[in-house]
Amino acid sequence: MLKAPQHQVAGHEAGIGKLGPLVDESGRFYKPLQGDERGANEVAFYSSLSTNSGIPEHIQRFFPTFYGTQLVEASDGSGLLPHLVLEDLALGRVNPSIMDIKIGSRTWAPEASEKYIQKCLKKDQESSSLSLGFRISGLQIYRSKELGFWKPGKKAAQKLSTEEVKLVLRRFVSSNTLNDLDSRPDCAFASTVYGGSTGILSQLLELKSWFEDQTIFHLYSCSILVMFEKELALKGKNPGAQIKLIDFAHVYEGRGVIDHNFLGGLCSLIKFISEILTAPNECRIEVSAKADQKNLTADNGVVADHKSHTASDNGVVADQKNLTVSDNGVVVDQKYLTNSDNGVVADQKNLTASNNGIIADLKKLTDSDNGVS
Amino acid sequence: MLKAPQHQVAGHEAGIGKLGPLVDESGRFYKPLQGDERGANEVAFYSSLSTNSGIPEHIQRFFPTFYGTQLVEASDGSGLLPHLVLEDLALGRVNPSIMDIKIGSRTWAPEASEKYIQKCLKKDQESSSLSLGFRISGLQIYRSKELGFWKPGKKAAQKLSTEEVKLVLRRFVSSNTLNDLDSRPDCAFASTVYGGSTGILSQLLELKSWFEDQTIFHLYSCSILVMFEKELALKGKNPGAQIKLIDFAHVYEGRGVIDHNFLGGLCSLIKFISEILTAPNECRIEVSAKADQKNLTADNGVVADHKSHTASDNGVVADQKNLTVSDNGVVVDQKYLTNSDNGVVADQKNLTASNNGIIADLKKLTDSDNGVS
Repeated sequence: MLKAPQHQVAGHEAGIGKLGPLVDESGRFYKPLQGDERGANEVAFYSSLSTNSGIPEHIQRFFPTFYGTQLVEASDGSGLLPHLVLEDLALGRVNPSIMDIKIGSRTWAPEASEKYIQKCLKKDQESSSLSLGFRISGLQIYRSKELGFWKPGKKAAQKLSTEEVKLVLRRFVSSNTLNDLDSRPDCAFASTVYGGSTGILSQLLELKSWFEDQTIFHLYSCSILVMFEKELALKGKNPGAQIKLIDFAHVYEGRGVIDHNFLGGLCSLIKFISEILTAPNECRIEVSAKADQKNLTADNGVVADHKSHTASDNGVVADQKNLTVSDNGVVVDQKYLTNSDNGVVADQKNLTASNNGIIADLKKLTDSDNGVS
Repeated sequence: MLKAPQHQVAGHEAGIGKLGPLVDESGRFYKPLQGDERGANEVAFYSSLSTNSGIPEHIQRFFPTFYGTQLVEASDGSGLLPHLVLEDLALGRVNPSIMDIKIGSRTWAPEASEKYIQKCLKKDQESSSLSLGFRISGLQIYRSKELGFWKPGKKAAQKLSTEEVKLVLRRFVSSNTLNDLDSRPDCAFASTVYGGSTGILSQLLELKSWFEDQTIFHLYSCSILVMFEKELALKGKNPGAQIKLIDFAHVYEGRGVIDHNFLGGLCSLIKFISEILTAPNECRIEVSAKADQKNLTADNGVVADHKSHTASDNGVVADQKNLTVSDNGVVVDQKYLTNSDNGVVADQKNLTASNNGIIADLKKLTDSDNGVS
């Protein structure tokens, strides 16, 4: 039984009269073949992947497994249509936080038609692609069982300003991502999701090394999917941080040249993520204008649900259950915190307080010297 | 006494009725200030350079020293005009081989006007910028005292195909760069000019590291000047391999984002140069079409001057005095060659023969076992 994927954040969505991807229960993802050369390109690319000796094994893992093509009843009711059969990347994940990040300041190949170039150039200019070297095509950030996901509109996500992208990349790994107006994400999971030897940054750096060298193909309009499970992170378990490359309808032969467009964008993303790891507590981000704020409003009508929160001295409002905010509004549940003397609340088994007003936000909060509880 | 620079390879050239840069004998280079915002931008950039704490010392050295601005009699006879006063990068060099490489697949900033964007985009498409991430804006390669320089036309240089750029980058460090039809450069100086701890690649990698991190400014339409002295290399002396960044009329603030456009192009150039060092003897380059060949013809009317040459088995014609070509047409004068048993001709003091038919091409050639002389 095929159905629309539960955790799609970008691209065409399946629905009544709408052609989109489908998934089955065995973990396969069915992507309708685009009728023109894009579909043929993508099939050719996936077909060549497993036999391409230029792609080392540690890089192969960044591509979804390909199971060929199959005629499948299309989601829009138009009958049997050829689909790419791929690995369902959300398989086994319960409530994944996901970002779809389209890499490259240019989403078009030099070989493309003038008309297509102008169309893409306009999109690249209107989105953050041109300025940042990438754009967030879509995202969902898990909030809680009760609140579900924070899922801004796709159009809004693509047009985020530099500061807003920084904010979203922080929110993605924060425990306090629930309030659309909250501009002080705690980056609680930065070290476990972005950091570490198997974290997102480490994977991006592996990819970067390869892109510095590979001249096999150029990937235009290709995305990096970034995923993890917040609930696992909250439990102190491995959060399953993972990147995958997707969307290969605009792959061209590299012909002896590296993909400098993809590489540049990738390095830009890497820099943003590195900065979060270097200064996870740096919350100087300010969303400049009210107009910009709108970009960050979820499109599903869900707003922050303040079941039990405490306002802190600096006016930051936390919106997680049983959550308390300290003087600087930083909320963290990192294991490696060390005990300090300025009054901190922490409640994780191995968690001890730090000296910068950090508060852990797990189920049981303990009083600290500064009386915040 | 100001005069036109002797070794300019790109940009506007000074001359009767032509506004261009000038040099004096004390080692200063006078660049006419462009009247519009470009001039103001460049002054502002150079003025900020020495005091910019974000530029570490080992990176500062890649920028020309700036001595302020000065009113100087313009080269076109139009009277006193403000000029940027810079370090003359060719000072102390007798017969420098020089490449001016404009970095970035995009020579325009996202902030530029639509008209300017379209104008630059067209140039980027017509040149190798879009495909390679850089274009050779101009170059001169020293041949010999008698033959002077090989200096292809600027327009031709900018439109080189990928294979031709590879060829030119090899020719740049070859001893047999004299014949425009010769497509088998020997890469004799690759290891001493591109390689080594102070060579071009090493300098480019330092620059790359910095561009992976710096978010201070974005350099559009900026060039890397690559220089060395072939005569010093021939004498086994330090060839003075050096890179410098030039042309800052289109510098923009980085505003927290790396210059992914410059970085991508820089990585592409690095890959090309690395390949030459990895396989200096790999001469599989073929110039595909007659039309392309024209691109590589010098614009100064100098053609190969075959004073004394020997044609080899594979039809390659060497055009250096007293030069002999071996079976595979590779001509080398590297010091580190080791003696082999297949008949090689070598004549440098510390030079011994290798086992792949390599022949040294210095003044005195000695007969080898295979009778080639």
